[in-house]
Amino acid sequence: MDKVDMPRLEVCFSPALLHLYDTRDTVVVIIDIFRATSTITAALHNGAKCVIPVASVAECIALGNEIPNSLTAGERDGQVVPGLQYGNSPSEYRPDFVAGKTLVLTTTNGTRLLHMVQQADRIVIGSFLNISALCTYLTGLGKNVLLGCASWKDRFNLEDTLFAGAVVHHIGGNFKINCDSARAARHLYRSVGDKPLLEFLKDSSHYGRLSAYGLHHDLEYCTTPDLHPVIPVLRGREIVAEV
Amino acid sequence: MDKVDMPRLEVCFSPALLHLYDTRDTVVVIIDIFRATSTITAALHNGAKCVIPVASVAECIALGNEIPNSLTAGERDGQVVPGLQYGNSPSEYRPDFVAGKTLVLTTTNGTRLLHMVQQADRIVIGSFLNISALCTYLTGLGKNVLLGCASWKDRFNLEDTLFAGAVVHHIGGNFKINCDSARAARHLYRSVGDKPLLEFLKDSSHYGRLSAYGLHHDLEYCTTPDLHPVIPVLRGREIVAEV
Repeated sequence: MDKVDMPRLEVCFSPALLHLYDTRDTVVVIIDIFRATSTITAALHNGAKCVIPVASVAECIALGNEIPNSLTAGERDGQVVPGLQYGNSPSEYRPDFVAGKTLVLTTTNGTRLLHMVQQADRIVIGSFLNISALCTYLTGLGKNVLLGCASWKDRFNLEDTLFAGAVVHHIGGNFKINCDSARAARHLYRSVGDKPLLEFLKDSSHYGRLSAYGLHHDLEYCTTPDLHPVIPVLRGREIVAEV
Repeated sequence: MDKVDMPRLEVCFSPALLHLYDTRDTVVVIIDIFRATSTITAALHNGAKCVIPVASVAECIALGNEIPNSLTAGERDGQVVPGLQYGNSPSEYRPDFVAGKTLVLTTTNGTRLLHMVQQADRIVIGSFLNISALCTYLTGLGKNVLLGCASWKDRFNLEDTLFAGAVVHHIGGNFKINCDSARAARHLYRSVGDKPLLEFLKDSSHYGRLSAYGLHHDLEYCTTPDLHPVIPVLRGREIVAEV
């Protein structure tokens, strides 16, 4: 295929930059490695019926009361919110616990970006836990792709960018890239070399924040590739596993 | 000095993210490598009396008429604006041409960011042309520093980030860094290795845009370190060489 006819691949580093991108006819991948999109990926692969991302804690509690067989979960600033049942730890959502259930989830960054995207062809969830499956899926679709980093309160972060860079590294050859953010993310990913991802991310703001909360196990989990090969896709208000 | 007592070093990738940073008591470095801050550096080192950055073409023309011994210059989308006398090419401003003159300058990105910064300790101009002088200056001040990338119409760009990364690489050890943008910029700079900077930047959006306008010589000029060791500082509405 001539490069000019290839679909576009772009990276957006922060929700505060989203307005610069045209998301029409575009598959938007939501990325919040630590930890919303890792948790969504794990829960759906482990059999959750669906995940409903919500903006506020109040909405989370209300939906949890309304929907039978549901769990409410979420965090603010990395910590479980009072009033919700569970946190934002992907390893919490094991099959025996989450199978068949609806997870109502609110988080600081990931769920917010997801609600900001308008008019996309579709919205899917990306994390290291499903990276190879996602790459195959995106290449197969052959449509424009925007990798959207949830960031931390609109601030650029290393872990979401590293994931975006890994995707650009793996499938960039099938797309037209005229986006410096995509190029920089790819340079970042390639600079990791043979080092384990988490080792590379030790010098990052979020690593410091979350490991101070005793969440080191979570960080290891979230940087393990391909533990949960599933494609979570937004359908109406629900995120479900694409079949 | 204990790390905790060190001044802060941060990087802002786009004017659209500037509101996330506290610029009070902070030295803000404006970075627009291709080409506004390179042009300002060259003009002042070559003896211009001052540079007055303005937002609009109309303002540029009006000030040019008002100020004796002045030149009006600027670009929009990389091209000289009709109604202005000169472009945004640093190599245009040779000593025999610019000495003693006031340069009234309007550009797409760099002058805009400069006007957005409020309440800084001071605003200085950075480019590869003055990088070593700037690094010595910033270390000597011992104050908080924000490296502000002018970007391209709010979009992240590689060349401004590469410059920010070079500064973080050279003087980061004298500052406290808790900013993933600063870390990523440093990774980017370090990934260049022994390659010439312009070679590395050939795969960037701006390189494609400007070299299509026949500006390859400008791009080489703007990526040559230390041609113009001067510190341009904003004083009122004028940028002057710090003495």
